[in-house]
Amino acid sequence: MASSFEEGLGWIGTGVMGSAMCGHLLAAGHRVTVYTRTRARAQGLLDGGAEWADGPAEVAARCGVVFMMVGFPADVRELALGQRGVLAGARAGSILVDMTTSEPSLAKEIAVAATDRGVGALDAPVSGGDVGARKATLSIMVGGDPDVFEQVRPLFEIIGQTIVYQGGPGMGQHAKMVNQTLIASGMVGVCEALLYAYKSGLDLETVLAVVSSGAAGSWSLTNYTPRMLKGDFEPGFSVEHFIKDIEIALAEARRMDLALPGLALAHELYLALRAQDGGRKGTQALLLALARLSNITWDPAGSET
Amino acid sequence: MASSFEEGLGWIGTGVMGSAMCGHLLAAGHRVTVYTRTRARAQGLLDGGAEWADGPAEVAARCGVVFMMVGFPADVRELALGQRGVLAGARAGSILVDMTTSEPSLAKEIAVAATDRGVGALDAPVSGGDVGARKATLSIMVGGDPDVFEQVRPLFEIIGQTIVYQGGPGMGQHAKMVNQTLIASGMVGVCEALLYAYKSGLDLETVLAVVSSGAAGSWSLTNYTPRMLKGDFEPGFSVEHFIKDIEIALAEARRMDLALPGLALAHELYLALRAQDGGRKGTQALLLALARLSNITWDPAGSET
Repeated sequence: MASSFEEGLGWIGTGVMGSAMCGHLLAAGHRVTVYTRTRARAQGLLDGGAEWADGPAEVAARCGVVFMMVGFPADVRELALGQRGVLAGARAGSILVDMTTSEPSLAKEIAVAATDRGVGALDAPVSGGDVGARKATLSIMVGGDPDVFEQVRPLFEIIGQTIVYQGGPGMGQHAKMVNQTLIASGMVGVCEALLYAYKSGLDLETVLAVVSSGAAGSWSLTNYTPRMLKGDFEPGFSVEHFIKDIEIALAEARRMDLALPGLALAHELYLALRAQDGGRKGTQALLLALARLSNITWDPAGSET
Repeated sequence: MASSFEEGLGWIGTGVMGSAMCGHLLAAGHRVTVYTRTRARAQGLLDGGAEWADGPAEVAARCGVVFMMVGFPADVRELALGQRGVLAGARAGSILVDMTTSEPSLAKEIAVAATDRGVGALDAPVSGGDVGARKATLSIMVGGDPDVFEQVRPLFEIIGQTIVYQGGPGMGQHAKMVNQTLIASGMVGVCEALLYAYKSGLDLETVLAVVSSGAAGSWSLTNYTPRMLKGDFEPGFSVEHFIKDIEIALAEARRMDLALPGLALAHELYLALRAQDGGRKGTQALLLALARLSNITWDPAGSET
């Protein structure tokens, strides 16, 4: 199915992540047709040589492989399965790759519908954030038919660095949920530890220097605490998208009869943060919700002087 | 105060950690006098050239610097402040170094009592576990008078690798509480993520390969999951000691008017694990308590075949 590539690639969803990822495919010399809800957000890619199509079915009609990178499962459902969706326009032998972090159960549903039309389907969510997307260092967790995965692998290698096949349909999404479950409780620990340090009068840089290098160390601690110490709560990865991910994981866990008290607590705390107008902030802003809980004004620069 | 070293060193508490740490001082050529509750547990050090004393006051009477590495704050209180305790026997100009993970408020109390007798006092808890103790790669977080710290620093450098002064009395203990707060919620996340992966049918090694290297990565994930996958729940660091640490952190947080919901949840889960006869297991056995919560039999080897 090298023909899939010659027929050109489709890309749906040109937010911060999607634009960067699609840009790597363009830069690698692929012919790419794009569609996104707001055409202006695709302008950079169109200027870079991408072609425009007026809807997901139109993208699919022209392309051998169609990628999606959008916001929420409802978007994925409409764009993949809707009346004017990708599967409505896709030819037999083509492939639909959803890179959105979305529901494992929806990924399975799409895979079934795709198979009915002779279309291949992969769920392939990523981790690594906007920086990983720009630098093409994303981790990609892939579920679906292994032969279809092998066909798409050369394209994944243009976008990401660590590409790991996880199993049948939905397993890429399940792997991403494992990732987000780790991050959620990890961030609770990072924020609570920083607040403890702050309230106890420790010098934050000094204590972080010693705890970061040992058994308490984590990617989140190393990468988010410098931002928190500067009062930088910009995304990175936004609270509203993280809440979406956590809710997917909790819903899937409920289906599996699995209680996850730590993830449920993180969910509640992130809901509180969103209620405090933190939805557009970065996930590290959980610190502010926890500070507010104990009536703490977070001002680490002031505390040091 | 080089004289403190010439007068010989005292060591109280010869458990797994203390024996290894004291052994490094002996191996470096220092004259060491030991005391511990059960003399048989000091036999290795006595065979290695250490001298025995019949109690903490007797150790202090002979030594310029006395180290303690015992189990619980109640032990620290009795050994430092009791009628036959270190301060009862210590000479002016000597130094008491408590390396037990203990209460910041007790460290301050000891520092005040020590100062009254012309004795220096440091709180200097460690992280790095039994492996760090054996390899002399411990991190040591030190609180107390900075001049006293500088006098003891050459001895710390024999025992540990990362030695960081954190501030006045109790600040070493506070730094250790920051460390344990990070580890507690981090372990909740690791265990819940593993159970999610297990229930969803992911291949555990495959999903860990991709999540460990990215934003979800942590020391605990890298170092504990291989043991969990083998069903190895031996300590390492025991649940009952970790509960002690968490309770100290929660009590200090309460004093500071600081709510730590994530740490409080971890506390409840570790209490459940202890109730399930898990007190002597390693901290990674939290997985078993969370598995039991959802009626899961943890058998990852079986699940792979």
